[in-house]
Amino acid sequence: MLTKPRLIRRSARPPDYETPTGLFDTWITPNDLFYVRSHLYTPSISLETWSLRIDGEVQNSFSAKLEDLKKFSVKTLTVTLECAGNGRSFFEPPVAGIQWQKGAVGTARWTGVRLADVLKKAEVTSAGKFVMFNGADEPIGLMPDFVRSLPMEKALHPDTLLVFEMNGEPLPLLHGFPLRLLVPGWEAAYSVKWLTHVRVLDREYDGFFVKTAYRFPKKPVAPGTLVSAADTAPLAGLPVKSILTAPADRADLPLAPTLVRGYAWAGEAEVSRVDVSTDRGATWQPAKLGADRERYAWRAFEYLWTPGGPGHYSILARATDTDGRVQPIVPSWNPSGYLWNVIERVSVNVKAS
Amino acid sequence: MLTKPRLIRRSARPPDYETPTGLFDTWITPNDLFYVRSHLYTPSISLETWSLRIDGEVQNSFSAKLEDLKKFSVKTLTVTLECAGNGRSFFEPPVAGIQWQKGAVGTARWTGVRLADVLKKAEVTSAGKFVMFNGADEPIGLMPDFVRSLPMEKALHPDTLLVFEMNGEPLPLLHGFPLRLLVPGWEAAYSVKWLTHVRVLDREYDGFFVKTAYRFPKKPVAPGTLVSAADTAPLAGLPVKSILTAPADRADLPLAPTLVRGYAWAGEAEVSRVDVSTDRGATWQPAKLGADRERYAWRAFEYLWTPGGPGHYSILARATDTDGRVQPIVPSWNPSGYLWNVIERVSVNVKAS
Repeated sequence: MLTKPRLIRRSARPPDYETPTGLFDTWITPNDLFYVRSHLYTPSISLETWSLRIDGEVQNSFSAKLEDLKKFSVKTLTVTLECAGNGRSFFEPPVAGIQWQKGAVGTARWTGVRLADVLKKAEVTSAGKFVMFNGADEPIGLMPDFVRSLPMEKALHPDTLLVFEMNGEPLPLLHGFPLRLLVPGWEAAYSVKWLTHVRVLDREYDGFFVKTAYRFPKKPVAPGTLVSAADTAPLAGLPVKSILTAPADRADLPLAPTLVRGYAWAGEAEVSRVDVSTDRGATWQPAKLGADRERYAWRAFEYLWTPGGPGHYSILARATDTDGRVQPIVPSWNPSGYLWNVIERVSVNVKAS
Repeated sequence: MLTKPRLIRRSARPPDYETPTGLFDTWITPNDLFYVRSHLYTPSISLETWSLRIDGEVQNSFSAKLEDLKKFSVKTLTVTLECAGNGRSFFEPPVAGIQWQKGAVGTARWTGVRLADVLKKAEVTSAGKFVMFNGADEPIGLMPDFVRSLPMEKALHPDTLLVFEMNGEPLPLLHGFPLRLLVPGWEAAYSVKWLTHVRVLDREYDGFFVKTAYRFPKKPVAPGTLVSAADTAPLAGLPVKSILTAPADRADLPLAPTLVRGYAWAGEAEVSRVDVSTDRGATWQPAKLGADRERYAWRAFEYLWTPGGPGHYSILARATDTDGRVQPIVPSWNPSGYLWNVIERVSVNVKAS
């Protein structure tokens, strides 16, 4: 069994690991530190036998080996992936599911080919409205197969890729070797791993992971409400959000200037500013945004804070994006605990010098 | 035993009652709806036998009947009184003490005479630095006597009164008949009821309710911390704060314009603005402040909100004062649960029309 000793194990089988926020010290998350989300068991795949099948509402069904796919125009994008359930453990009342804290997120350079180019070769018919994705992950008892679908518009977007490299290396097994979908800006469950089958459909796929899971209430509901699937819609883009990576939560600090650091992201939008508060949210100061930037990638930020005296402080971070969205104070509770993005907070204790 | 059937009983003996926020529908709180905070048993007092003794570090000790006091210049002030523990029930982790929610606050017109005029007649000596206040409230077992003291500067402030009328009526028994101290802008435990003894001291009074209770950590502490009395200082002024009085928390509302109403106050400062958010604190709109205003009195506010659609909403209110203080997002936890003033919130459910 593959393990990730420096990460926090949230499930052993299937392997689910999150990254401790203190390990996020570079804009690009190294592969070994990248969070892992699996719904089913990790498959064993050999390139000799692996191929990708493209069929459904197309004129030209075909199967392709990895070397065939690499003949399409290759593109590299730096993209932040975040599990829709990242932060689930903070909802009140609590909800079922993997109890992610802050680290089911990471940023990598992904290299692959455009799904649109592959679909163009397959010649989608006029009946084609959605595209279904299935992987080689292996069953767990009666758990439904992990199959997802995308509306055609997002499937054909030039940034939606079939990727085979992560940070310049072949895709690691836990991240979908040899090929995964990459849907930039959307919650990461769309980025199906160990991809073996792309089928064009005339309607949205109707399996469990489309019609039941990864859905959000159509209208806001009171915390603790039961919501039927009919009153929900599929998740898509990510909200604006930030995490603080330094100082660590509950850190003891000297009475001296301290560099407050973190990352902010906003799905398909870009982060326009991050503000930091050290007076319990009464006043806010702008953080400095990092030079590294790309459309779908998180943005580093930092703020040099000089504590006014010893004592206990909350450090808050609030990101705003180019769509004018801003992190809220109150969470949007939902039965599956998706899209937690309230104003970020760590607490520290400043010691008298 | 006197009871207050429309109020929420927090303790039967001694009588402690808070006002349900839905009953705050006038700038002036009627006497029958005014919250009640007693530390000891309510005394029986007859004007025939009652008198006020003034002594200690003065040249001219004397006793006065109510009719003697009324010969000093009479003054009426509209003042909001708030228990320091108002909101205590919201702290996490929970703290001991009366579990006040939002209604240990109220506003009345108080009529009395200046403490400064009475002290002038007594001729305070140069040794006089603090003034101690004791009332006729009756002992509860081994509970310490409820005695408080004020620094001389606040005691001599022209707005610090000995009051005998509340909203034009003789002071009701539960509010200190026949005479109470009124210390505008400071937490209400300074406004000692059933007053019988004013003593000028050369130092701060050293009883339980000065040296142990009604104190706040000198520096901010982590939630749940044990704090010794030596690391605390006496409470004084109140922070900036608001409460929402309509709609009621958990109300069902039609999909139609709704008047959001409440009150805001700021101790010795004045409220300069109140903002309301209906999108979980992402954006804020200014509320309209009421015409009624007086320095130490709360200010009504209202905001006409048109819900964008059905669903569950949090309505937030955030007051700012003339000292530039603003209600925080994060509470300042303290071991006795004083001065709760985080951004105010109610939740409502807007029904489809």
